[in-house]
Amino acid sequence: MPASDPARTPPPFHAVIFVSQRTPGDNGYGDESARMVAMVREQPGFIGMESVRGADGKGITVAFFDSEDAIREWGRVAEHRQAQASGRANWYENYQLYYSRVERVRSWEKRSE
Amino acid sequence: MPASDPARTPPPFHAVIFVSQRTPGDNGYGDESARMVAMVREQPGFIGMESVRGADGKGITVAFFDSEDAIREWGRVAEHRQAQASGRANWYENYQLYYSRVERVRSWEKRSE
Repeated sequence: MPASDPARTPPPFHAVIFVSQRTPGDNGYGDESARMVAMVREQPGFIGMESVRGADGKGITVAFFDSEDAIREWGRVAEHRQAQASGRANWYENYQLYYSRVERVRSWEKRSE
Repeated sequence: MPASDPARTPPPFHAVIFVSQRTPGDNGYGDESARMVAMVREQPGFIGMESVRGADGKGITVAFFDSEDAIREWGRVAEHRQAQASGRANWYENYQLYYSRVERVRSWEKRSE
């Protein structure tokens, strides 16, 4: 299932906001993170995601899904659970998760003159 | 009104997810952005915020508020409206806003051994 553009998806839908602080060093994070992104894109109900990490290792990822069921199912995927455990053991100092319902979307783009 | 910790705030509350792509150069962004952060912290109903910008100029800011009214009031503040206009004129290539209701929060922190 190809991901679509969350900013063009009519609400309501769901957003999982993941705020995290990485530990220093890679420790296999890059490869595993890429594998999880590829997997979640195939997850039924996945809409799209936005992700940014700063130079200080703080990151925010927002993953958009069309239902709470889709979020629950993704939470049950064995490889994902394994990655979460590795995250706590190796990759994160701390993280916060905000499970949210998107009620309104606005987007803006500079027009080329 | 001092900001509190969104991860320790009992849901439901509200999150405004702001995903943006900066234009190259500062053009007064740093000063104005700091001024807006200081102002929103004084806004009644503001809970806290998380913000990250990557080396490529892409950023995600999540601002948490205790009600939709608080978000609306912040949207009416004259200095904020002026900053938004400057944002479109000078600082952003594009942005997306997701107005969301936080329904569940989880947080984790590595214990010091």
